[in-house]
Amino acid sequence: MQVMNAEWTTVEENTARKAFDTAYKREISALIESVRYQASSLAEVDDMWRLHDFLSVKRHEVDGRYDYHLPMLVFIFAGLVKDGWLSLDELEGLNANKIAKIAALACM
Amino acid sequence: MQVMNAEWTTVEENTARKAFDTAYKREISALIESVRYQASSLAEVDDMWRLHDFLSVKRHEVDGRYDYHLPMLVFIFAGLVKDGWLSLDELEGLNANKIAKIAALACM
Repeated sequence: MQVMNAEWTTVEENTARKAFDTAYKREISALIESVRYQASSLAEVDDMWRLHDFLSVKRHEVDGRYDYHLPMLVFIFAGLVKDGWLSLDELEGLNANKIAKIAALACM
Repeated sequence: MQVMNAEWTTVEENTARKAFDTAYKREISALIESVRYQASSLAEVDDMWRLHDFLSVKRHEVDGRYDYHLPMLVFIFAGLVKDGWLSLDELEGLNANKIAKIAALACM
């Protein structure tokens, strides 16, 4: 795909790093909040194993998602926009072609 | 080992079931308390993955430990006594030979 081999200017790289870190902090913060809430209402053993399952899935997702490599950033950002951890506005600084690709992929 | 093939009287089976259930409830209750506490003090992502690791280990331990089979009960009870989830007093009703075996194994 064309965007995978696209050049990234310094401005774009700075924008990307900032957006990536913002999304990461946002998702982790929401996750911590959710774990705290689930843990506060634990009543029985099944609730505890459900929390364990939840953490297993989220750890796998987070580890897979937040792997910063420039050639993959368009896809990573599309996923983050799709899942609501980033808005297209926060990608201002990337060139119009990349933003269009991200927007299109986020709708898939 | 001799105890593995020992007979269990109805009184012993009732005692065993009660002690087994007591230990299970006690351990699960302590575990829920511990998870609630750990979750309430989550501050960053590493705390959350530590909680996940803790739950993985405990789930494995609990699943392995609380598998009710008469021939294995002496060993199960020895582990529960050793780890403080059951006292020898709570096994009153089992014959003296079984209790002696459990007490000896619990010291290993």
